[in-house]
This record gives sequence, structure tokens and C-alpha cells, in this order.
Amino acid sequence: MQFQLTDDFIENLQHLIEQNDAEQVKSILEDVHFADIAEIIDDLNLEEAIFIIKLLDSETTSEALMELDEDQRDRVLGALSPQEIADELEEMDTDDAADILNDLSDERAQEIISAMADEEHVENIVDLLRYDENSAGGLMAKELVKVNENWTVTGCVSEMRAQAENVTRVHSIYVVDNNQKLKGRLSLKDLLTSAENTPIKEVYIPKVDYVTVNTSGEEVARIMRKYDLEAIPVVDELDRLVGRVTIDDIVDFITEEAEKDYQLASGISQDVEANDSIWELTRARLPWLVLGLFGGIGAAFIMGLFEPLMAQHAILFLFTPLIAAMAGNVGVQSSAIIVQGIANDDLKGSISNRLIKEVLLAMLNGLILGILLFAYTYFSKGDLLVSVAISTALFVVIIVAGLIGTSVPIILHKRGIDPALATGPFITTSNDICGILIYFMLAKAIIGI
Amino acid sequence: MQFQLTDDFIENLQHLIEQNDAEQVKSILEDVHFADIAEIIDDLNLEEAIFIIKLLDSETTSEALMELDEDQRDRVLGALSPQEIADELEEMDTDDAADILNDLSDERAQEIISAMADEEHVENIVDLLRYDENSAGGLMAKELVKVNENWTVTGCVSEMRAQAENVTRVHSIYVVDNNQKLKGRLSLKDLLTSAENTPIKEVYIPKVDYVTVNTSGEEVARIMRKYDLEAIPVVDELDRLVGRVTIDDIVDFITEEAEKDYQLASGISQDVEANDSIWELTRARLPWLVLGLFGGIGAAFIMGLFEPLMAQHAILFLFTPLIAAMAGNVGVQSSAIIVQGIANDDLKGSISNRLIKEVLLAMLNGLILGILLFAYTYFSKGDLLVSVAISTALFVVIIVAGLIGTSVPIILHKRGIDPALATGPFITTSNDICGILIYFMLAKAIIGI
Repeated sequence: MQFQLTDDFIENLQHLIEQNDAEQVKSILEDVHFADIAEIIDDLNLEEAIFIIKLLDSETTSEALMELDEDQRDRVLGALSPQEIADELEEMDTDDAADILNDLSDERAQEIISAMADEEHVENIVDLLRYDENSAGGLMAKELVKVNENWTVTGCVSEMRAQAENVTRVHSIYVVDNNQKLKGRLSLKDLLTSAENTPIKEVYIPKVDYVTVNTSGEEVARIMRKYDLEAIPVVDELDRLVGRVTIDDIVDFITEEAEKDYQLASGISQDVEANDSIWELTRARLPWLVLGLFGGIGAAFIMGLFEPLMAQHAILFLFTPLIAAMAGNVGVQSSAIIVQGIANDDLKGSISNRLIKEVLLAMLNGLILGILLFAYTYFSKGDLLVSVAISTALFVVIIVAGLIGTSVPIILHKRGIDPALATGPFITTSNDICGILIYFMLAKAIIGI
Repeated sequence: MQFQLTDDFIENLQHLIEQNDAEQVKSILEDVHFADIAEIIDDLNLEEAIFIIKLLDSETTSEALMELDEDQRDRVLGALSPQEIADELEEMDTDDAADILNDLSDERAQEIISAMADEEHVENIVDLLRYDENSAGGLMAKELVKVNENWTVTGCVSEMRAQAENVTRVHSIYVVDNNQKLKGRLSLKDLLTSAENTPIKEVYIPKVDYVTVNTSGEEVARIMRKYDLEAIPVVDELDRLVGRVTIDDIVDFITEEAEKDYQLASGISQDVEANDSIWELTRARLPWLVLGLFGGIGAAFIMGLFEPLMAQHAILFLFTPLIAAMAGNVGVQSSAIIVQGIANDDLKGSISNRLIKEVLLAMLNGLILGILLFAYTYFSKGDLLVSVAISTALFVVIIVAGLIGTSVPIILHKRGIDPALATGPFITTSNDICGILIYFMLAKAIIGI
């Protein structure tokens, strides 16, 4: 059923573009969905992409532009004139147009704005530009269907028809008073089932979930997910209805946030994908590796301090990678659970309760793992004191790693820093060093040199 | 605007429940949204929760049940009789009811099914039970609005009104032929803007995205996200319309998948949350730690083989944690990018191209990091040969780790295993061992003992 993008299709298309066969290109792309057009353009070089963009009508290309891979979109926009971009923006929903302008330089954005003809549309877009991208104001679109509480159902229908022309999808019909203040909503289901001469005042649902322009994106996503909403109205500081956020934007937002968290947990510091250039991937990965390198040098420095101990008990050194790895693993596990708890807003109870629980959990894990390690070292090496030292150190290191893993994301979150930063290389590296330090100090104390 | 759940509210509620003050409890919960009722019930003990479930009408509690924390829901369902559960299921959408029954034992599910009165509803639910939970059939609900292509708009409206009563949200009106085969859709917008006496055949949109009952959940999510759909019809093997998947279920699905991947990357093997019991958390975390322990023992074993080398160049041992940590970090970085590429279905090009790119990337990173490490070791320790050995080993280890990190998820995916399993402890542990082995072998070769 869906369009299947094949290598043959792309090759054929490239061939046609090379021959400048506009007619033929147009005909094979005619019935293709804009999301598929975007995938096709992602696979073309810049020149070919521009050929397609200029060839197809801007109703299709404006939608396709929004679905393009970000890097490809930047290249395409860079190759279009302000007037050409303005034509695309005229066809876009206000929120998409604002997103495009937000990514451009102020100067270029100004040129494009000046080149746009539809004044109301431009005003709406410019209005959206002033909101933070990660707020309801930044996520909302101006397109919506609203009716005045003083109208009747009959009176509304024609007005709504006109408004619906500009709105891709009608979710709810919002009801406002004479001052544009949000009063409630009218569901399409109600419209299907209520008589035409009923006054709006009598049929609208006064309970309506809404957010303000300053509500954070995460909070909007949380509310829409919790209450299974497909659109939520946005009001300004004076409770006036100024826009709505739709679920498709929230789906994208949730996906992007999840990817960002996953990447941070994996030691990738900015949004990259597998198809990005080696240079982009290096910029995202190298900083964490340098951090890891410094951590490793720190660990080497600490171990150097214990060389006299090693001279007598070389076996101790064999287990440093084990201790470091376990410290890292436990730290990442406990921070990941806290990061998700924070993201889902379901962390209950105080920090101290949380830490006590983690200590109990770490003690249970540490005890089991410590016994396993003791069994291995004692039966393979036969040195009781050293075996006690190594397994006791593992036990203590697991508890400390759990405490660090639990507290760091909580502390970061309290200071307004994304707690996901705490997972991955940051926790691994600091726990490596802590773990090794604890290991050698404990071993020294137990063996008594 | 939203309901704010406070400790005071819960305490007051618990007090009222203790006093058996049903009237008062009912009145303070009257206007509370079912999603908030669920949050309240999550905070109560089982006895209090059951009090609320039995007190409120099942229209509210059936919805709240679906929003409960899974553990609490299992407890609540365990405390209700088959008849009581049947009453809840009567009020639920078919997909939710099927999800509940899927989690119960066959015997108990059978008891509940026998206790349900609405035969059509039961048939629909039982029908859903035969699909895999992670397929369009498992995600879909039977509730939808459909019209026959042979009707007229006028003829449809009353029929649709009747159907709409059973459907929480009308997204699209699906058009079928006399054999129930999906022909197309009718948008509500079209309904608003077209004359009442038009035949359906002339106004419906024949192009409609759909999936079959066997389409995987990931694929349904990808299609709905790509085409910004809010509902998608599901057809059976004979192209007959049998259900629809709505975006709210997909939002939950996406969120759960993202959480699962994040947890796998963090070394947590089953779905847990911060509020779960220590025992549940241990079961999710301990297996990966045991894997890490065995990895560490393996590393110790390998290092033991090189004790003669250590006796002469103790400094080499100081850098094993660094080598192991870098191997782990690089491995996780490269596998995470591949895992995301697979999840987003945007991995382009062949495996060998992918590996060549990773090698180039790893060489660039390895060169920079190797030079940094050489500078440190040479200027702090003054031993040229050892410094060359350590930094060369780092360079090689980074390349190998990148290759392992890239290929493992691709191989897992090709074999139908979730590639996210590859990230986290699995990659870290295997790369630790490989890294240490390469390190000592190279050092031995370079230093020449």
C-alpha cells in the first residue's frame, strides 16, 4: 500500500533530471505523498533536489521541506532565494513556517518575511517567532477553528466551513467569548448529534484542558499523553486563545527527546544520525572520549600511588578493570532509572528515601556479586586475605557507585540541568576513578601494608 | 487548570475511606478526570483502591484502570471478582479490554468472558485476543465509524450518529463495499463542506493508508509518524476492514519502546521503574552485573597471562582501566548510532560501507586520542617505547571497538533480535576484554619481550 522507495526509482529519477525531462519527473511524482517526496529528496544531491523543489507546486514541496533530513533542508534552503522560500512559507502551517525562520539568520529571515504576501499569515508567523522553541508557544500553530459562545449552531456552521479550509485537521472547535477568552470546546461528535438551532452557549463543554504559551514542551507532552489529547488549546497571559498544539508535533517532540536522552546515555553529545558526515559524528563523540581519556589517566595516576602494594600483591592489579567496569555498570543502571523517573514525573518520596532504597538494592546486588567473586578468587588463587580484600572492595564500590548514580541526576535536575547528561560516560568515568581509589585503599587497609 | 494531586488530598481521602464516608468520597472525586483518578489510586493501598473502584461508576473506573501503574492494576484486578471485572470490561474499548484479558491466566479470562453480557462487545474482544500484542491486530480497537459506498451522505448521517455513540473519538469515516472491503475514507471536514444529498461513491477519498493485522507495531508507528496520521484502518487477509489503531495508543507504544531501548542501553533487562520493589529492581539489574563480573574475571585471566611483561613494565598495567574504558565508550557510541538508525529505518547503504565509515571515524578519533595519550605518557614517564606501545594500542583498540559496536547491532537485527540489546553492558563487557587482549598483545610485540 505504501510507496516503496527503491534504488531503481532513484536512479531512474536522477536520469530524468539529468535529461531535464520535467514532464516525466512531474508525472512519476504526481501521486506520491509529501513524506515520500521528502525521502526521495534526501537521497538526491543538492542540484537534483532543487530541480524537484522548483518543479513541484509549493503545496507539496512546503510539506516535504518540513519532513526533510535537517542537513539536507539547510542545504536546500541555502540554495533558494528569499522569494522562493517565501512562496513555500505561504503554504506552510504557521508553526512550521516559524520553525524554518527560527533556523535562519535574522537578516535572511527578515528578507523572507518582507517577500511574503499574505499579511495575516505573516503576522501569525512573526507572532510565533517570539516564543521559546521548547514551549507551548513555540510548538503551537495559529490554525484552529473557533466559534463565539454567542452564536447558534446554525450560525456557526458556515463560519466553521470557512475556517476549516485553512486547517489541515479539525480536532475540536474551541469556544471563545467576545474578548477571545477561551470558554470551552465543541466536539465534532456533538455537532453530529445536536440540532442545528441550538445556541452554542447551551451545548459547549466548559471543561477544557489548556496550556499557556509559557508551558514547557515536556509538560505539554505529559498532559497530552496523560489525558490522551489530540490537540490542546494554548492561551496567552490574558487567557485569550492564541493557538493549539497538535499530537503529531508532540509525537515528534517525544521521539526527539527520547533520542536525545538515549544519545546522552551513550556518550553522544549532540543530535547526530548514522548518515551524518564523519566530521559531524566526531564532534559529537570526541568530547566524551576525551573525558574518558582524562578519567583513564586519573585512574592510572591513582594506581601509580599504590605501586608498593602491587609489588607484593600483583593479583590485585588484575582485578582493577573488573572493579572499574562494575562501578560503571552500577552507576549507569541507577542513574538511568532516576532519569526515567524524572522524565515521567513519577519519582515519589524524598531524596533520602531514594538513597536508602538504592543502598539496600546495591547491598543486595553487592553481596551476591561479592560472594561470587570471593568464590572465584579464593578457589583459583588460594589467598584468603587478598580474596577478602577484592570481594569486600567490590561490595563497597557497588554501594558507592549506586549512590553516585542516584544522586547526580537528582542534583542536576534540581539545578535545571538535563539529568540525562549524568548517564553514560560522565557517570562511568567518575565511578571508574572512585571505584579504583576505594578498591586500593580498602585492599591496603585489609591486607595491611 | 489541571488537577493537582497533593499529599493533603490523599490524606484527606484516606481519612474519609477509613470512616467509610462513601458520600463524601464520591463528591470530592466527582469531577476528577479518570487519568487523575488513576494517579490517586496509585497512591492508595489495595483496600483503599478497591473501595474507590467499587464506589465510582464503571464508566470512570474502567478508564482509570487502564491508566494505573501496571503493578497496582494487577493487584486491583486480583482483588476483584470475575463479575466485577466483567462489568469494567463492558465499559472499556475493545483494545483495552483485550489488553486486560491478555495479562490474566486463560482460566480467569474465560470466567470473565462468560460473565460479560454484551455479546457483540465480547465477540469483538475475543476476536482481538488472537493477535500478537506487538502487531496492528494487537494494537487496534474494533470501535470505528464506517459507511457503505452505496449509501448517500444523507443516508449516512443517522447511521453514523448511532455508530459515533460507541466511539470515543471519530477520526475518519471509513468507506467499505458490500463485502466489508476497505475502499477509502470520508473526512469530517468533507462532511462539513459537502451537500447532504451527494452519494458517498462520489465524495469519498479512495486513497487511504492502511495496515494489515499482521503489520508490526514498530511499522505501524513509523507509518503513522511519517504520514502524521491520527488513526489508521486495519484490514484482515481478505482486505476487510476489521479495526483501527489510534494515535494515543501509538504515543504509548513509542514511549514504551524508547524506554525499553534506554533501559537496555543502561543495562536494565526488563521494564522497571524507580518505584518498583528492590526485588524487582534486582531481577532487572543483576543479570547484567553478573555478565560484567564474568567479563572482569575474563579480563583478569587475560592480564594474568602477561605477568612476565608486567614484571618489567609495571606502567603498562596502570593504563588497562583506561584502555578498557575507552573500548567500552567507543563501542557504546557506535552501537547507539546504529541502533537508532535501525529504529528510524534510515540506515542507508551496505554494511561494508557502514563499517568503512566507522573505521575512518574511529581512526580520526583514535589518532587524536592516541596523540594526547602519547604526549601524557612520554612527558610524565619518559619511556619512548612504552609510550608508543600504549598510544598505538589505544588507536587500534578504538578502531576494533568501533567495528564491534557497529557490526553487533546490525547482525542482531538481521537475525530478528532487538539490536538495543547490543548497547550497554554487552558491548562494554566484550569490548573490555577485546581491548585488554589487544593492548597487551600489541605492547608485547612493540616492546618485544
